Amino acid sequence: LVGNTQFSFAFTDVSGYVLLLSEIRAQLVEQQKCLEQQTEMRVQLLQDLQDFFRKKSEIEMEYSRNLEKLAERFMAKTRSTKDHQQYKKDQNLLSPVNCWYLLLNQVRRESKDHATLSDIYLNNVIMRFMQISEDSTRMFKKSKEIAFQLHEDLMKVLNELYTVMKTYHMYHAESISAESKLKEAEKQEEKQIGRSGDPVFHIRLEERHQRRSSVKKIEKMKEKRQAKYSENKLKSIKARNEYLLTLEATNASVFKYYIHDLSDLIDCCDLGYHASLNRALRTYLSAEYNLETSRHEGLDIIENAVDSLEPRSDKQRFMEMYPTAFCPPMKFEFQSHMGDEVCQVTAQQPVQAELMLRYQQLQSRLATLKIENEEVKKTTEATLQTIQDMVTIEDYDVSECFQHSRSTESVKSTVSETYLSKPSIAKRRANQQETEQFYFMVCWLL
Amino acid sequence: LVGNTQFSFAFTDVSGYVLLLSEIRAQLVEQQKCLEQQTEMRVQLLQDLQDFFRKKSEIEMEYSRNLEKLAERFMAKTRSTKDHQQYKKDQNLLSPVNCWYLLLNQVRRESKDHATLSDIYLNNVIMRFMQISEDSTRMFKKSKEIAFQLHEDLMKVLNELYTVMKTYHMYHAESISAESKLKEAEKQEEKQIGRSGDPVFHIRLEERHQRRSSVKKIEKMKEKRQAKYSENKLKSIKARNEYLLTLEATNASVFKYYIHDLSDLIDCCDLGYHASLNRALRTYLSAEYNLETSRHEGLDIIENAVDSLEPRSDKQRFMEMYPTAFCPPMKFEFQSHMGDEVCQVTAQQPVQAELMLRYQQLQSRLATLKIENEEVKKTTEATLQTIQDMVTIEDYDVSECFQHSRSTESVKSTVSETYLSKPSIAKRRANQQETEQFYFMVCWLL
Repeated sequence: LVGNTQFSFAFTDVSGYVLLLSEIRAQLVEQQKCLEQQTEMRVQLLQDLQDFFRKKSEIEMEYSRNLEKLAERFMAKTRSTKDHQQYKKDQNLLSPVNCWYLLLNQVRRESKDHATLSDIYLNNVIMRFMQISEDSTRMFKKSKEIAFQLHEDLMKVLNELYTVMKTYHMYHAESISAESKLKEAEKQEEKQIGRSGDPVFHIRLEERHQRRSSVKKIEKMKEKRQAKYSENKLKSIKARNEYLLTLEATNASVFKYYIHDLSDLIDCCDLGYHASLNRALRTYLSAEYNLETSRHEGLDIIENAVDSLEPRSDKQRFMEMYPTAFCPPMKFEFQSHMGDEVCQVTAQQPVQAELMLRYQQLQSRLATLKIENEEVKKTTEATLQTIQDMVTIEDYDVSECFQHSRSTESVKSTVSETYLSKPSIAKRRANQQETEQFYFMVCWLL
Repeated sequence: LVGNTQFSFAFTDVSGYVLLLSEIRAQLVEQQKCLEQQTEMRVQLLQDLQDFFRKKSEIEMEYSRNLEKLAERFMAKTRSTKDHQQYKKDQNLLSPVNCWYLLLNQVRRESKDHATLSDIYLNNVIMRFMQISEDSTRMFKKSKEIAFQLHEDLMKVLNELYTVMKTYHMYHAESISAESKLKEAEKQEEKQIGRSGDPVFHIRLEERHQRRSSVKKIEKMKEKRQAKYSENKLKSIKARNEYLLTLEATNASVFKYYIHDLSDLIDCCDLGYHASLNRALRTYLSAEYNLETSRHEGLDIIENAVDSLEPRSDKQRFMEMYPTAFCPPMKFEFQSHMGDEVCQVTAQQPVQAELMLRYQQLQSRLATLKIENEEVKKTTEATLQTIQDMVTIEDYDVSECFQHSRSTESVKSTVSETYLSKPSIAKRRANQQETEQFYFMVCWLL
């Protein structure tokens, strides 16, 4: 702690000290004002925090209500459907319908969580800020009382220094005055002694008598003045000692006040402020983190369902939904006509020859078809793979849209441009449909 | 795949087969209806998804706007303050003010992220669902064309079976008829031969001649009928072979249609559906997960700031803010009066004795104060610790409010009761203030 440049003028007399005292008194008042201002700023900040969370609570509640309405609207719609009855019954849904239900569930979960958030803001966080505000005000009042007492004590010490300093100056002045008076008496005495050194015979007896009494008088005065001087000198020394001691005591008091008490006064205003603020903000953080965790859990459930989007099991379920439509008829059996029996007919030469010829023709046709079929199969598989690749291309990552620059002032404004370039989408779709066409042509219509 | 119980009646004649054919034709139509219905359900689901995300996009946008307004309102308020100027200048803020600014930043970040979310829903996710809907419809149309061709082919085969069966029955009937006619001729011949075994002499020559020509006639007829029968028999056998071959071919075609083609038709409708839905939902998930990550980053920044809520550095900063108010005055120096000099005064006996006495008194007073002070220090430290413990109690965890039960139907309704029991809060606060009182009493006013 360095000396205060504010009190730069040197005081060498008592009136200078009086000026300094009034300045110190003004500084103490200013300190009080600073603490008051700090408390006012805190109360204002806490008021802002309350207003902020009250408004945010409203926003969260409105958001929650909107989400609830959204979920309810579609829930009501699906509740009556056949799928939902099925869902209630055996939880065995087509995989896309399952995803859809989980989406609605997620919205309901978000709705509930944001309602909880709103509730925690209103009934917990805001209450805490209110209490911190009360505490700050109470602490400031308390510190003001203490400061008043400390200032009184300090001023008492400073005033005492003024008193002892004044006393010292007065006594020293008196001592100086006594000394000069003594010196004057000594000078007079010297003069008298010098005069009495003159030839006596020249002087008349009468005059001689007069001189002697004068010397005696001067001597008496000198003695008196000597006593006075000694007395004043002692008083002055005592006053100076008192001044020196009080000076030390004052410096110690000033040091104690500025270095310890003032710091303690600030601590008194701070008591619990940071810790309580910490807890209030941690309540907010706890609520937000928990909302996040809940949201994440819900998203993971949806992600699992998306992983389970599977055409094979859905096809199975689809066919089971319509048992009569997809069952093949019984195998056609030979219906003999009026007791006709299929017996060995090979013995009948013309029939056998005809059958053999037909068999050979079929064999050769089959061989050709097999080769053709292999070709077609290869082509279709390749084409199908191309289509599969087209529809499973991983183009769904949108993380770049959520990049925040360090500075919150500059915002990425054109989000939609980056993640979905429309010409490229159109081109890709055209490409996909062309491949589809080719696939159908090769696979079915050849 | 088991045989269809729908076609339970056995057909033994052609008219039975005709009935069966019409039933199969009805089943094929039903299959087509099922696929159409599936496509309609998909289109409906995709429409619901679009409506859902359109509405959710609106909700997110409104939420974003409200958050932006909230942040802007308090930003504007703080922007003009001294603190903010300071912030702009040296980023050196009081730790609670820093938390407050980061809270506002977080709201702005959330606002931006929810706007991005809204944008992604509207311009990416919904577009994908639209395209999947188009694709599904197009695929269904394509599969309908193919199904039409397949049904035509299948019915052609089934009709052919009908034809060859009818032919076989006709030729077999003719063969039977020819056979019975042949048998009749043989019987007549036998009768004639039996009659010609009668004693010839009894018969007249004229009559004998008549009989011979009759036998010849019968023989001729028998030969003719024999030929007719053989011809018909061969035709019947050929027809039966044709029938047997066609039967196999038909069974193969029916098997191919029901086991392979039908499955391929469903696959054709499904082509890309699950994969595209997967990507659309993953886009949604990517957006949500990224929002979460961004939100989490922001919360972590606030948590760091909350960790840095620190009274010591804030006190330092507070005192630096008001440099003149907290600087101690210069040390008071001895101001000598008119050239007075402090010299050894110990020689002066009365002064020395007095000073020694005073020194002893002060020494003893100091010793007492030191003991008292130690006691007070211990008590205040303990009390202060109690207060510190009170204000740093970890009562800010609200995770239990975000517990979701498995069933989304049953909701924890009274959230606020659990995390903030008001009587206990009031009691704790009263306790805290009592301890505070004691602290001040001990620390300052003794």
